[in-house]
Amino acid sequence: MKPYRLASREDKDTIIEVHSGEGTCSIGEGYCTIIAGPCAVESEESILTSARLVKKLGAHILRGGAFKPRTSPYSFPGLGVEGLRYLASARKETGLPIVTEVLDVRDVDRVLEIADIVQVGSRNMQNFPLLRELSHQRVPVLLKRGFAATVEEWLLAAEYLMSGGNRQVILCERGIRTFENSTRNTVDLGVVPLIKELSHLPVVVDPSHATGKWQLVRPIAKAAIAAGADGLMIEVHHHPETALSDGKQSLTGANFARLMEEVKSIAHLEGKII
Amino acid sequence: MKPYRLASREDKDTIIEVHSGEGTCSIGEGYCTIIAGPCAVESEESILTSARLVKKLGAHILRGGAFKPRTSPYSFPGLGVEGLRYLASARKETGLPIVTEVLDVRDVDRVLEIADIVQVGSRNMQNFPLLRELSHQRVPVLLKRGFAATVEEWLLAAEYLMSGGNRQVILCERGIRTFENSTRNTVDLGVVPLIKELSHLPVVVDPSHATGKWQLVRPIAKAAIAAGADGLMIEVHHHPETALSDGKQSLTGANFARLMEEVKSIAHLEGKII
Amino acid sequence: MKPYRLASREDKDTIIEVHSGEGTCSIGEGYCTIIAGPCAVESEESILTSARLVKKLGAHILRGGAFKPRTSPYSFPGLGVEGLRYLASARKETGLPIVTEVLDVRDVDRVLEIADIVQVGSRNMQNFPLLRELSHQRVPVLLKRGFAATVEEWLLAAEYLMSGGNRQVILCERGIRTFENSTRNTVDLGVVPLIKELSHLPVVVDPSHATGKWQLVRPIAKAAIAAGADGLMIEVHHHPETALSDGKQSLTGANFARLMEEVKSIAHLEGKII
Amino acid sequence: MKPYRLASREDKDTIIEVHSGEGTCSIGEGYCTIIAGPCAVESEESILTSARLVKKLGAHILRGGAFKPRTSPYSFPGLGVEGLRYLASARKETGLPIVTEVLDVRDVDRVLEIADIVQVGSRNMQNFPLLRELSHQRVPVLLKRGFAATVEEWLLAAEYLMSGGNRQVILCERGIRTFENSTRNTVDLGVVPLIKELSHLPVVVDPSHATGKWQLVRPIAKAAIAAGADGLMIEVHHHPETALSDGKQSLTGANFARLMEEVKSIAHLEGKII
Repeated sequence: MKPYRLASREDKDTIIEVHSGEGTCSIGEGYCTIIAGPCAVESEESILTSARLVKKLGAHILRGGAFKPRTSPYSFPGLGVEGLRYLASARKETGLPIVTEVLDVRDVDRVLEIADIVQVGSRNMQNFPLLRELSHQRVPVLLKRGFAATVEEWLLAAEYLMSGGNRQVILCERGIRTFENSTRNTVDLGVVPLIKELSHLPVVVDPSHATGKWQLVRPIAKAAIAAGADGLMIEVHHHPETALSDGKQSLTGANFARLMEEVKSIAHLEGKII
Repeated sequence: MKPYRLASREDKDTIIEVHSGEGTCSIGEGYCTIIAGPCAVESEESILTSARLVKKLGAHILRGGAFKPRTSPYSFPGLGVEGLRYLASARKETGLPIVTEVLDVRDVDRVLEIADIVQVGSRNMQNFPLLRELSHQRVPVLLKRGFAATVEEWLLAAEYLMSGGNRQVILCERGIRTFENSTRNTVDLGVVPLIKELSHLPVVVDPSHATGKWQLVRPIAKAAIAAGADGLMIEVHHHPETALSDGKQSLTGANFARLMEEVKSIAHLEGKII
Repeated sequence: MKPYRLASREDKDTIIEVHSGEGTCSIGEGYCTIIAGPCAVESEESILTSARLVKKLGAHILRGGAFKPRTSPYSFPGLGVEGLRYLASARKETGLPIVTEVLDVRDVDRVLEIADIVQVGSRNMQNFPLLRELSHQRVPVLLKRGFAATVEEWLLAAEYLMSGGNRQVILCERGIRTFENSTRNTVDLGVVPLIKELSHLPVVVDPSHATGKWQLVRPIAKAAIAAGADGLMIEVHHHPETALSDGKQSLTGANFARLMEEVKSIAHLEGKII
Repeated sequence: MKPYRLASREDKDTIIEVHSGEGTCSIGEGYCTIIAGPCAVESEESILTSARLVKKLGAHILRGGAFKPRTSPYSFPGLGVEGLRYLASARKETGLPIVTEVLDVRDVDRVLEIADIVQVGSRNMQNFPLLRELSHQRVPVLLKRGFAATVEEWLLAAEYLMSGGNRQVILCERGIRTFENSTRNTVDLGVVPLIKELSHLPVVVDPSHATGKWQLVRPIAKAAIAAGADGLMIEVHHHPETALSDGKQSLTGANFARLMEEVKSIAHLEGKII
């Protein structure tokens, strides 16, 4: 018997719809949804520049961190509430829906004022009070896989999110921690078809965190869609070399444009709407 | 250059003193401190029985979870505030100081009313808002190593706890996640002497979670002290077979008595006060 | 400085040519080469049936194990020399070149009489006497990544193979061992573009061993080609449910036919000859 | 049902006796046997110096590699047959029995002329032809755990060694590969009491390879004996800083002397003959 119920495979795949100034964006089986943007919101001008760039190149959703989980207390923690305001500006101007991370259960209300999709990061995948709180909300949640979480633990975290009535969970594979250090993490694409077998929930892949190297992002993005993923989450920065975090894994506009073109071809082969 | 400063090796080892009805209990270099008790507080009677048992057998501190992090939303989550009250009764009767886990940053005040030492669990080692909150408190914090955390990440989590002025951090190795499944986790005793080299903070070992099998707890407890650990955290239950959680790794009173006796011999060899 | 030299990136990619009754089969950048067949040679009739099947469906090379590395001394160890003879029959009839594993350095000559490509299995990636012996031969070697080998160790094993003058090494990713047990291994597709950056050698992927589940083989095969792999190694069996080994991860003819069709579309997108 | 039979727990523990110029040395339950010496035999004078040193300080068996498995083809591969001769000299002079590694199945006879115990290294734990060959010999085999081998795979490798009639297998834990890189490997002491439960075979621990840092060797050596190990394998070099391999994890004579003294106290506590 499977230990999860609400997250378990059903006849019908869950399609999550996000509404924005520009209409409706769908995430789930049959679609290929591209989430792109910088790791962190660094300034109003910076996020606006990134938002215009990824919008022009075909992204459907803007990502950007206002609250950043940092391994060291001395690293840039994000702009916080100010960052949320800048994300709101970017949505207003570009019409792109926003996905941003909530770190602190006490910030849920503030983040929900702005976010079209709330992200639960890898380190919080088993932050049960945060999952419980979000389970009572009506917002789609992008649930990153814990970097050392099994598929079962990941689906049980989704179960927590659904236990209060929220049905809108998007799973995001972002690489796992293994003995191999030539990449930042080890991208586990086998879980993409496995999740499709076990669950009705959409699954997207973040090749930026998974590999940690911009040169590997495009090939792994294509591989993810070929494996059946419902979308991608890509770090794009107009000047990766000056980014306050994750510059090494961020794509320039030119590289993101090439990724979009090649991913579109694969998505079309797979019969996905992009 | 080391990325942590406050947690870094200094001439002087940190000794943490916990005051209770019975006097002062010290944790750190030169001491061998035994924390024992059930995984979860199950009822007032149950925690009192356990407290009397471990007290009689020589434990210095009582453990017991009121708020339990559970992988599944359908598992017993602990008794919550009621469990805290029972822990208070157990302290009152036995004089043993209490260590108990805080899961939710919103519960910090409530837990601090009761806890002599607050535990941050393995899944919360990188719950940065919780670490920040506890860094402003005057309570000793037992910081369990994340089950997939490197030593550097662990010491950086300690750095977070110390960044607000709190100097009372106890590190607890509790096993890491590896490919090996014949034990629940893989106990990493190499980190005990390594932490002693890198940091001034006390380090204790939890062989119960590390191995997941009661038969392995006693040998690994002895090994931990022989490797230089400053103490142990042991799950003891008066009826392991009926425990609501972690019964397989809990010791009976008889087994704990034997552990105490053998650990004492090793501690004496090592010149530690027990 | 890189610790390997002969295996290191050069301007020119290495293309390995295998000659057979039917002409020349190329492996390397620009090609998509499909190696298919049963895990083990089980009988003459069985390998002939499989050979005809995979030939008809478009495979370029026949795989089949005569000497099988088995974790238990009580498992079927392969037919040995008899199995080699059956492989020779299959090549004679179908014209398909043969790849088969050598386990014992004392069997190299015997295996070389039959094999067009010799396989060094995952458990032998650091069997240095075997690597040294093969480095003096003129046969292409398919070098499977050790299931816990880093990319650097893998390329150093290739360096061993090349150190005696052999330049014909094909790298094969077959999944690594991690904490995740919902798949047999964790397929590490990030290494495909990484190897392309670090080395001039061809790299193929074995999704059968990597996932251990036939349902995941097709999606991961497609993902591998989309990530830039130069080919695939696929377990196909006419009756997977009666296979003497690895039945759970073997494709039926019908499933292999579908895989070939979908892989061809991806290969064409990538501009690869298939 | 356990997949191994010959290696499985029985009433009686296996005690292996090694005869040398000085009498009999026993390995198994109730004994604490110390194997010490340099990683590699570097010259006749060097191994004689080391042999005299470890003999004087109380070691029971001399280790030293003549054939060395090296990750790179450009590293020192050992002195080979010449190294075996020097080991023979060292035994002749000191009376210490010799343990040395065999890498190549074709070298078994040559190594057996000299070795009192043959070592199968971590990378060869699943070199099945080598295991089969040794299973027909009458020599004790020290079987190192593969650096990514499960306990079951390790016991199945022992089963291979016993399948031809050889009953003299000594298991050696030497650290496993995990995500943690602050030590060379992660020493898995939980397997010591676990092996005692599952098997009748002796189990020893190699803290030198397990930790890769000489400062950690003494604490982990003591921990291993406290956990129930039947002995230790320790790298000792008269000038670690000039050692051709593994200098960082080798003890000086002074450090080994201190280790011996402290290990003796623990062994006495455990009721072991040392």
